[in-house]
Amino acid sequence: MTDIARIEAAAARMAGHVRCTPLLSSPFVDALAGRRVLVKAECLQHTGSFKARGAWAALSALPAEARARGVIACSSGNHAQGVAAAARAFGAPAVIVMPADAPRLKLDNTRALGAEVVLYDRATGDRDAVAAALAAERGLTLVRPFDDAEVIAGQGTCGLEIARQALEAGVTRADVVTCCGGGGLTAGIALALEARAPGLRVRPAEPAGFDDTARSLAAGERRRNAALSGSICDAIITPEPGALTFPILQRLCGPGLVVSDDEALRAMAVAFTRLKIVLEPGGAVALAAVLFRGDEIEGEAVICTASGGNVDGAVFCTALERFGTGD
Amino acid sequence: MTDIARIEAAAARMAGHVRCTPLLSSPFVDALAGRRVLVKAECLQHTGSFKARGAWAALSALPAEARARGVIACSSGNHAQGVAAAARAFGAPAVIVMPADAPRLKLDNTRALGAEVVLYDRATGDRDAVAAALAAERGLTLVRPFDDAEVIAGQGTCGLEIARQALEAGVTRADVVTCCGGGGLTAGIALALEARAPGLRVRPAEPAGFDDTARSLAAGERRRNAALSGSICDAIITPEPGALTFPILQRLCGPGLVVSDDEALRAMAVAFTRLKIVLEPGGAVALAAVLFRGDEIEGEAVICTASGGNVDGAVFCTALERFGTGD
Repeated sequence: MTDIARIEAAAARMAGHVRCTPLLSSPFVDALAGRRVLVKAECLQHTGSFKARGAWAALSALPAEARARGVIACSSGNHAQGVAAAARAFGAPAVIVMPADAPRLKLDNTRALGAEVVLYDRATGDRDAVAAALAAERGLTLVRPFDDAEVIAGQGTCGLEIARQALEAGVTRADVVTCCGGGGLTAGIALALEARAPGLRVRPAEPAGFDDTARSLAAGERRRNAALSGSICDAIITPEPGALTFPILQRLCGPGLVVSDDEALRAMAVAFTRLKIVLEPGGAVALAAVLFRGDEIEGEAVICTASGGNVDGAVFCTALERFGTGD
Repeated sequence: MTDIARIEAAAARMAGHVRCTPLLSSPFVDALAGRRVLVKAECLQHTGSFKARGAWAALSALPAEARARGVIACSSGNHAQGVAAAARAFGAPAVIVMPADAPRLKLDNTRALGAEVVLYDRATGDRDAVAAALAAERGLTLVRPFDDAEVIAGQGTCGLEIARQALEAGVTRADVVTCCGGGGLTAGIALALEARAPGLRVRPAEPAGFDDTARSLAAGERRRNAALSGSICDAIITPEPGALTFPILQRLCGPGLVVSDDEALRAMAVAFTRLKIVLEPGGAVALAAVLFRGDEIEGEAVICTASGGNVDGAVFCTALERFGTGD
């Protein structure tokens, strides 16, 4: 189980290896949102997303023997790079099971970080079966993307930083809008804030049509998405909230916020113009909710995560060409 | 005169008003450069460039009476926004003399930050005369962009942060490559490092054809640029090194590094892909020198400033379309 002690322990193990990302702001973003906005820029984290936190937490918590045998993960993107980078730092072998049609840059990056990439066919293959077979054969430890107590603790270190940085900014009561896929980051931040900044309430944000967390929170039980493709917010599309993450979300978070793909793209343009950071669509949904769902948010200030920036230039330029400065 | 005491005093006045920007890194940038690279991301500073530092230092150093009468500055871009933002924070009137053909976004931003914008015709007008007349008429204090002891001290606070952050990163001996226009940032950083990190040597970087500082350092006296337009690195095109900045540069910095406009654009693409930050061409010349003039740099590690990110989407996308990931 993840609790504040486990999050604090993860933070101690990460010191010097995971970046404390800045809490950015702009008077122009405040004006657009109609309230003060503080943006936790996790796109500036090592590997370009918050996933480096959970991966480091998981690998650093392994017994040295298990780590030396190696780790394995399934991911088409940010978790892949996080696990590969952490494994390289520990000198541990890493195998990442990736779909053969994953973006070239993400495949290249994962390999360049020293991981062995095993491809599977997304249409006909079963990545979990591939991973299980390799794990058994080589004695590898599986690092799950969100349903893992240490991974949640690692993402929770982002919440420890938010608690401290919000206090420094004079904000003690606000909604904290998170980009939410399986719920690892959202649950981790919620646990950290419960202990360190109880006036901050976590609100998961998701893309329209893939709002399993919002619907699950409303229903009081886990609900699945009807589809697993069809949004540009690929990094945060998951079948349903996690078995470990959902009870945490249910106790501490909500209600959920839902934005369109176009709103995510427009938030990317705002982040480019006003904050000088690069966001991928899935990393921009929380900022989009802050900008375009302000009537569903309470308080004079709001905090949001900008959780990743691993985006192709072509997608990025589409956002800028369509939405200009984002105003 | 600017010295370490004045820089420390400026830092104390800025606390809570100017951001401590992160020192970013990426193993991919290291591989491209052939050595460890640490990037001081001043594009994440308030107003999108380091100019917010010098402006805050200058305004906060004014006697309250003078500040209440107001300030005036000449700038087409980053200094304009820095002075406007600092003046607004102090509740002081600000007048910015800007060319009528300045980029729309920069005009809009300066006005949105509460400044009165006075336009002049770049071809036929004399902005210094316009500013002097307004200053005399209204009792405004002129805030120069670099040749001012307090402005240099303010930019020097960036150097205090570099000294501390480099030490935290285990780097005590390295070149520090700066984006150099009139030399305010370069001189300020050099003074701070002389006192706080004497193993770090400052190397100014400039665009080809506008390398007045490199030529001045080589000649031992100030040399002028032949032209004042024709580079995309508009933010750092100045006629010659400053009267106050050059003696500091001459004592502490050099030799200069020179990059092409294309290399600056390619460095922007690298910063997008690997660091997730938005750089303008003039803010990318130091990174470009690190990437493409490595044979002129010494040591296992190098630090560079990424000094500003106020760039139009069209220019930014040109960089991404032409240079892809920058690899």
